[in-house]
Amino acid sequence: MTDSSGREAIPEIAALIKKIDLCLLTTSGDDGQLHTRPMSNNGQVEWEGSSWFFAPNDGRLVAELQADPQAVAGYRAGDAYDFISVSGRATIETDAELKKQYWLPELERWFPNGPGDPNVALIRLDAEHADWWTGEGDGSADLRRPVATS
Amino acid sequence: MTDSSGREAIPEIAALIKKIDLCLLTTSGDDGQLHTRPMSNNGQVEWEGSSWFFAPNDGRLVAELQADPQAVAGYRAGDAYDFISVSGRATIETDAELKKQYWLPELERWFPNGPGDPNVALIRLDAEHADWWTGEGDGSADLRRPVATS
Repeated sequence: MTDSSGREAIPEIAALIKKIDLCLLTTSGDDGQLHTRPMSNNGQVEWEGSSWFFAPNDGRLVAELQADPQAVAGYRAGDAYDFISVSGRATIETDAELKKQYWLPELERWFPNGPGDPNVALIRLDAEHADWWTGEGDGSADLRRPVATS
Repeated sequence: MTDSSGREAIPEIAALIKKIDLCLLTTSGDDGQLHTRPMSNNGQVEWEGSSWFFAPNDGRLVAELQADPQAVAGYRAGDAYDFISVSGRATIETDAELKKQYWLPELERWFPNGPGDPNVALIRLDAEHADWWTGEGDGSADLRRPVATS
């Protein structure tokens, strides 16, 4: 395990996330159980500390995040032994422009009416902590800490 | 989504888990965050409702489960769009015979001293709920419900 770092770890995390199309997103349910579901990584090639997900506004994921915004996204890069987990707090974004900005055509598989559909919720997960395990080594980062300066 | 079923879903879940070598196991931390890490599926070809994991007894995973036994294991089958999540309660097993029974030689990568090492903990995750998403359809099961009889 490498020493824990701060936000200077963001490019390394972004390089891992870029290789991955789907993640497993976990939230706490009101039954005391933890729930995990696959979510699209939303074509996120430039990760700067927040992850973006679309979900039905009337679904279990949005309801769980409204009750408890803590969530964790776990990513595995294909067949490689490259894993990353990103924990943080989620916010439900209601801004129509943001929804259009992050929308991708392949989301129409789940949401045929596009980003203007009132039942489309945009979730922003702001990373607070990340851990990773790769063929080149392991690491962790406290992403609430600013970039270290010398 | 198929209708939710009870423990009669276990063979279908077992067939999915059998194809998978690693999962992402999520627990709640005392900092309020959720934590996810990759774990070996422990060669589990016959799944009957409990999943077994080895971990360091003095590590964060065991400490988190002792404070809050709710956990969820998320599995992705290779490159396929086959996902399964299994939520439940974890128990730390201290029985030496059980540790020997579930031990696999490849675990020596992490635990060179074998199952008799006092710092080797065996975790049993008893499934209470499962959700799955596969190319052949989605489903969920309340595994606290007995097998339905006609």
